[in-house]
Amino acid sequence: MAAQTVARTTDSVNLGPAAALSCRECGHRVPLGPVFACEECFGPLEIAYDFSGYDTEELRKRIESGPANIWRYAPLLPVPSDVADKPNLNPGWTKLVQADNLARELGVTGGLFVKDDSGNPTHSFKDRVVAQALEAARAFGFTTLSCSSTGNLAGAVGAAAARAGLRSCVFIPHDLEQGKVVMAAVYGGDLVGIEGTYDDVNRFCSELIGDPAGEGWGFVNVNLRPYYAEGSKTLAYEIAEQLGWRLPEQIVVPIASGSQLTKIDKGFQELIRLGLVEDTPYKIFGAQAEGCSPVSAAFKAGHDVVRPQKPDTIAKSLAIGNPADGPYVLDIARRTGGAVEDVTDEQIVDAIKLLARTEGIFAETAGGVTVGVTRKLIENGVLDPSKTTVVLNTGDGLKTLDAVAGTGLTATIRPNLDSFHEAGLA
Amino acid sequence: MAAQTVARTTDSVNLGPAAALSCRECGHRVPLGPVFACEECFGPLEIAYDFSGYDTEELRKRIESGPANIWRYAPLLPVPSDVADKPNLNPGWTKLVQADNLARELGVTGGLFVKDDSGNPTHSFKDRVVAQALEAARAFGFTTLSCSSTGNLAGAVGAAAARAGLRSCVFIPHDLEQGKVVMAAVYGGDLVGIEGTYDDVNRFCSELIGDPAGEGWGFVNVNLRPYYAEGSKTLAYEIAEQLGWRLPEQIVVPIASGSQLTKIDKGFQELIRLGLVEDTPYKIFGAQAEGCSPVSAAFKAGHDVVRPQKPDTIAKSLAIGNPADGPYVLDIARRTGGAVEDVTDEQIVDAIKLLARTEGIFAETAGGVTVGVTRKLIENGVLDPSKTTVVLNTGDGLKTLDAVAGTGLTATIRPNLDSFHEAGLA
Repeated sequence: MAAQTVARTTDSVNLGPAAALSCRECGHRVPLGPVFACEECFGPLEIAYDFSGYDTEELRKRIESGPANIWRYAPLLPVPSDVADKPNLNPGWTKLVQADNLARELGVTGGLFVKDDSGNPTHSFKDRVVAQALEAARAFGFTTLSCSSTGNLAGAVGAAAARAGLRSCVFIPHDLEQGKVVMAAVYGGDLVGIEGTYDDVNRFCSELIGDPAGEGWGFVNVNLRPYYAEGSKTLAYEIAEQLGWRLPEQIVVPIASGSQLTKIDKGFQELIRLGLVEDTPYKIFGAQAEGCSPVSAAFKAGHDVVRPQKPDTIAKSLAIGNPADGPYVLDIARRTGGAVEDVTDEQIVDAIKLLARTEGIFAETAGGVTVGVTRKLIENGVLDPSKTTVVLNTGDGLKTLDAVAGTGLTATIRPNLDSFHEAGLA
Repeated sequence: MAAQTVARTTDSVNLGPAAALSCRECGHRVPLGPVFACEECFGPLEIAYDFSGYDTEELRKRIESGPANIWRYAPLLPVPSDVADKPNLNPGWTKLVQADNLARELGVTGGLFVKDDSGNPTHSFKDRVVAQALEAARAFGFTTLSCSSTGNLAGAVGAAAARAGLRSCVFIPHDLEQGKVVMAAVYGGDLVGIEGTYDDVNRFCSELIGDPAGEGWGFVNVNLRPYYAEGSKTLAYEIAEQLGWRLPEQIVVPIASGSQLTKIDKGFQELIRLGLVEDTPYKIFGAQAEGCSPVSAAFKAGHDVVRPQKPDTIAKSLAIGNPADGPYVLDIARRTGGAVEDVTDEQIVDAIKLLARTEGIFAETAGGVTVGVTRKLIENGVLDPSKTTVVLNTGDGLKTLDAVAGTGLTATIRPNLDSFHEAGLA
């Protein structure tokens, strides 16, 4: 892998304010390139920005007059300044729904909001991260966009590549449900089933990156991961702007790899440093399913490291048993005064129905996890109902219909009024 | 029915610029109320507006500084001026995608755009019309929102009622596919299966409106139809504004009842009259599935009336065999120099895949109909590829996965490089 990535690393890459890659562990800096692990300590690389020269009020105006998608924040992302003119899916600027009905049910008095990312082009937050990876792929001259996936990511990569005119080749376990295969295959890229588990798929992708056959391939969540991950910052930016340029006091975020939660914290910190919001305290809460709760378990046990688990939950989009950013999540939850909690599959389903019934939002299982954890944290006195609270819904219920398959008809009647009255529906 | 509707008719109803109901056939005017048929000639009632006193440039500014949803056009809709502050799903302001890849495939040189209404809250254009019906329901004091439906509308009504805090009671044929039942039931309203066909469901709803049991019920597509239908005007407004306040030269619209097509024409005409766009010529093209093509058949035969058909097509959201607005559609297509055309189920599936492959948009079957008809009209020399053309996608492919169920894996391999190379994927 080293040979390929070094060859593609160049100082002339134009990714806007992205200045270099920097190791989150040891701080070692390398030029922008398709690398993700520190050559010194094997720590994760992330984007280091040069935000110098930004005038706060000029920047705010530029953002507010920008497009109604993530590219309004282009000055804060690893993308060229003309990104909005390029063919991509233009995700983001999804609704921040003031959830007064849900607030009443949960007893929240300080203002409750649902950030509803089911409004993205392929109906999950993955469009945000893939859009960043796509720009990095273009900058590094990659011609194939790739990933390993079991669901949302496959569709997001297939759609983004189609629109951008790149080839896509997505790897999935060969025995995935037919519905998910169709959703990923419809965009016309290559969709390859791997005889093995999701772990086998991942291992194969790492092998392919190091092989000449992988030359010219950008794996959004592997060799483009430092760029990809930054897409989650846009959730923080949008929430703050939609609240009138202020930070929420509490936010509940789902945990899969944990990357999203860490980037939301990074986004809030940047907004403070840039003067776009006041430096008011916020607590970040992580949400997991009980059937895959390694970070929640570590938080409760007071550990700094995360012990891997074998996932067994209906919240498949969160089912990462060995979350790479787990230790960073623990650190952020503790530092901000938040917590990490988990809910059972039954509580997830109840929460999906609660959100649908109160706000007309049909969330995927990951949304059931955040709403369910919010309810539990309030009941346990951990989350303060008198404070402004934002809950993330990162995906769409249409993709996880099985979770609520028990939902059905209230009644079946014959087509006449007598039958209607007998059923007690008036 | 008359007794109930007259009782609820009042001159003090505040629905913004909506001044009265007016018969499209004989022009007879009645006060705003939950009525849909002219008492003189049984013609369809529609909203008559009072747009007097609008200054063009003030109106344009007010729209442009409005919210990123349909309520930016509140001054042109039958809704109170504070509509944006009420709990509703805030649909609209969906993406107008510049479809350069699709344009290349179809040979369009004058600019091709897809208006992608899968971005609405419940992922179909029905959210636009239901949002209008909801405001009318509130104005008339209805406490239950209802409809007959076989799909998209059920979910849109259930979600809108949940968010607005109204009861919902939706009627569907009892033997609908389980997936569609789940999508409609998840919002927690009453979902009633009727033992019979969709026609039986409709007949029963009309009976219920005339019964005391239906007191306080707003049927979005029956007694609230004049308000409901106006929601489709917002498609015209958004397209014109997103094109920089100009009309497209050609637009391809799907036909179910035909209402949407007539309201898009009405919207364009209003924009011209209000001075918001120049009075440039536009052609409106209607699109049907061959398996339910009563309007297309009448257009080709040169008839003014539409002979009902028994639908048999995968495009179920367009499968209305006896379209109420058929004659008006024929009139508009002929008056604007457009046409009505149909495509086979196979062409619909091909078009869904074409749109996904070129633009990363996964459309429901109705979107396959419009894209397929666009291709056919270009091939036949009816649609001019040198002119600016807008194609509507009114729904989401996730809701009609069966249509593309044949789509699948490119290859299945073992998790190693040898197997990858053997499959010829490099």
